[in-house]
Amino acid sequence: MEFSTALEKFKEVTKLSNAYTYAMGILTFDGETAAPKNAVMGRAKVSEIFSEITYKLTVNDEYFEVLDTLSANSEKLDAITAREVELSAQALDQIRHIDMEEFINYRGMLAYSHNAWIEAKRSDDFSIFAPYLEKIIAFHRRVASLVAPDMDPYDYWLDQYEQGLTIKMLEAFFEKVREGLVPLIKRVAEKGDIIRSDFLERSCPIELQRKLSDHLMQVMHIDRDNCAIAESEHPFTLEMNKNDVRITTHYFEDNLASNLYTVIHEGGHALYELNTGDELIDTALAGGTSMSVHEAQSRLYENIIGRSENFISLIFPKIKELFPEQYKDVSEHEFYLAVNRAQPSLIRTDADELTYSMHIMVRYELEKRMLHGDITVDELPAEWNRLYKEYLGIDVPSNSMGILQDVHWSGGLIGYFPSYAIGSAYGAQIVESIKKELDFEDLISNNRIDEITAWLTEKIYKYGRLLKPCDAVKQATGNDFDPKYYIDYLTEKYSEIYGL
Amino acid sequence: MEFSTALEKFKEVTKLSNAYTYAMGILTFDGETAAPKNAVMGRAKVSEIFSEITYKLTVNDEYFEVLDTLSANSEKLDAITAREVELSAQALDQIRHIDMEEFINYRGMLAYSHNAWIEAKRSDDFSIFAPYLEKIIAFHRRVASLVAPDMDPYDYWLDQYEQGLTIKMLEAFFEKVREGLVPLIKRVAEKGDIIRSDFLERSCPIELQRKLSDHLMQVMHIDRDNCAIAESEHPFTLEMNKNDVRITTHYFEDNLASNLYTVIHEGGHALYELNTGDELIDTALAGGTSMSVHEAQSRLYENIIGRSENFISLIFPKIKELFPEQYKDVSEHEFYLAVNRAQPSLIRTDADELTYSMHIMVRYELEKRMLHGDITVDELPAEWNRLYKEYLGIDVPSNSMGILQDVHWSGGLIGYFPSYAIGSAYGAQIVESIKKELDFEDLISNNRIDEITAWLTEKIYKYGRLLKPCDAVKQATGNDFDPKYYIDYLTEKYSEIYGL
Repeated sequence: MEFSTALEKFKEVTKLSNAYTYAMGILTFDGETAAPKNAVMGRAKVSEIFSEITYKLTVNDEYFEVLDTLSANSEKLDAITAREVELSAQALDQIRHIDMEEFINYRGMLAYSHNAWIEAKRSDDFSIFAPYLEKIIAFHRRVASLVAPDMDPYDYWLDQYEQGLTIKMLEAFFEKVREGLVPLIKRVAEKGDIIRSDFLERSCPIELQRKLSDHLMQVMHIDRDNCAIAESEHPFTLEMNKNDVRITTHYFEDNLASNLYTVIHEGGHALYELNTGDELIDTALAGGTSMSVHEAQSRLYENIIGRSENFISLIFPKIKELFPEQYKDVSEHEFYLAVNRAQPSLIRTDADELTYSMHIMVRYELEKRMLHGDITVDELPAEWNRLYKEYLGIDVPSNSMGILQDVHWSGGLIGYFPSYAIGSAYGAQIVESIKKELDFEDLISNNRIDEITAWLTEKIYKYGRLLKPCDAVKQATGNDFDPKYYIDYLTEKYSEIYGL
Repeated sequence: MEFSTALEKFKEVTKLSNAYTYAMGILTFDGETAAPKNAVMGRAKVSEIFSEITYKLTVNDEYFEVLDTLSANSEKLDAITAREVELSAQALDQIRHIDMEEFINYRGMLAYSHNAWIEAKRSDDFSIFAPYLEKIIAFHRRVASLVAPDMDPYDYWLDQYEQGLTIKMLEAFFEKVREGLVPLIKRVAEKGDIIRSDFLERSCPIELQRKLSDHLMQVMHIDRDNCAIAESEHPFTLEMNKNDVRITTHYFEDNLASNLYTVIHEGGHALYELNTGDELIDTALAGGTSMSVHEAQSRLYENIIGRSENFISLIFPKIKELFPEQYKDVSEHEFYLAVNRAQPSLIRTDADELTYSMHIMVRYELEKRMLHGDITVDELPAEWNRLYKEYLGIDVPSNSMGILQDVHWSGGLIGYFPSYAIGSAYGAQIVESIKKELDFEDLISNNRIDEITAWLTEKIYKYGRLLKPCDAVKQATGNDFDPKYYIDYLTEKYSEIYGL
């Protein structure tokens, strides 16, 4: 195939793929936020049809030749196209090993799976979701065995979300985290429940919480013309392009902090997407480079910024204004302590920073065993509950608050959870570098978080997927990844809060 | 081409077309209700790509042969497929005369046009929308000249929305309406402003109005699992399939009636779609048969049911419950009179039943002249204002409340408005037939509107597009369309209300 023909065909396929990805993204967003319940059937049909079309677009001999031709002539390509070709080739390495019908059936099944998970969680009945999870695990094991028969199947899937990540590395990472944090968690626990946080459960009308969300978007300097906010069962961020990002949140009348930190977390994801480079628009590189690097941003904004005393000073006046009765007897410092109160709890998304990694370790353990075939789906709820007792010392009262709490598995994401923990550690290391160049705390106090975002944009965001995930920390900090910053950050913060 | 090959290809194209229609429907709904403002660029690109794909699906020699083969063998087709083929052939009669690039550019332009209209309306600046309207008119004139060079261009477009409708028929219809209603409007006007309606402007929090919307959905027996409600600038109903219908409304704190009657109107559209036959799912026949027949339903529920004294009795307790302070000095009968107060006004969607047709006549006049090339876009605002003075006797204070009030033209709908008036007249004739078989008033009083819907389902809804528009009134009433029922209905109702 001629180089110019290959390039033309590649651009055409990229354009079409992007259009289907866009449509499927909006269909997903609609399904989570607006569609009536029974829309699932129609959506599943369209999802199947579009999956088949996109599959056929790239999984064919002509397109393989396109990629081979371009790969062999990568020196003739500009940097963006070269990276697009590299990523496309990587993606096809998986898809070309899977039978088309199997792939399409799987994608169609996921639409039903998601609905089943919602039903199962609402009615606290794991058996509604179990048959879908079984299919999802089987699919993951099968794909790994087909694509990388010599690899550990869990290593294979970890690598899909974070290139190069392995069980071995995670064991080492979790080992350091355990060494550093378990004694700290223990010392905090010995102090007892000394932080008052009852006021966080006071009833705050949802209509007013929505106004707080609007305020938070302003404080984060998120342009609403480019970023919408909606509501869904499980919050998420969806990026169509840098001019169209959506975040979702959920509201609980008796849990102000849940929405507060959901908006800041998803807002962190949004800021990454909103600040990718203009030159990446309409390419396959427009977007965050990996799950971990994405989670590094969301957790950096949520925790390192959002739970700092300076940030609380910045937003507490608005909270007092919106909820004068509820917060009349609460000081800024008390609010700061409350949102940092460390206590082993049931729900990952509402967990404190200190114990958060323990939640990930439960999921990591179970995912590893699922993919190794060491545990059946029926055994999962009991094992989940046992691990929560072991790692966090708490009893799980229901599957809705246990194994059914997260959306990820129902959407076919297995191997994704570890990136949350890795991401937190990335974030701590990156902030240490920001502090060398900017007056980090001062910027937060003075409502100039956009300058922190600008720093991150220069180092990470603007590169989109041009930047390889493994290079993100290096490029931002000048050093290799090291979890010690994360452990130091938590040790310092919690020692002060608990007066250790 | 073999008959069996043709049939197989036809089914395949229908399936694919439906998938793109579905995706574009969701993209439109998302654009109107949830997307951030700058999403328009990405959406326009995808819209262009999908338009090109759907165009190519049907506009090609092979597909023409498919249709020719099936048309020539229609006796071998089941009734549903035969009608699908007939409608596809009709639709292609237009599209095959248009250059593909022109068609795609036009569709892409419409996405921007819609945004321009929103901006123009918000900033009361017609010049923002004018260049788009100019392109839309030019496209309509051009299409008509290409497809039906011997036809009047406005006749051509009227026929697109209501098969067989012509300027001549509309002039006759409007003539009868004028004869019957203008004297009535005059007599009502002579009575002076005797109906109290100040309380409709009392401030009602939007959060509580949303609860009223939920109640109205219940009263109309609309299953929320199959029908969502959202908010948009201009309300509309979107049907994906009978298990996924969306209606939108808009809220104004000082205008309770606006949302009240928007929900009932759009709810009427929704009931038609929700009750099409199961056997039509996934065919091109699933959906209402024409704009007029659709508007007959929406206006029947909104006006003949929704503004009846029995319906007010049914819902007024909820209004009192939600807004006890605002309605403490208002009786049921006063509320009934207020929502039926006849007064020439500016906004079509908020107009009373009696003067409603006058609003349509303004649009009809202008559309006719636009398509005849008898008026320039620059002249439209002044002419709009002049006609409002002539037909309704009122001064238009701004373009936002005048020519920019409706979404239709910005979406490329020219020739659609007359169906609103025709639809109202259909509805009145159909209700006369219902009354012969059911105790219409009694069903409304007793919260059994679903039985009226069941009657309409048997006569009209379940047939979807199997039923030809011109046969709908005939099938439901056993008689040809006659506007006298509409005039009689309004005469009786308003004579009683105004004591004439």
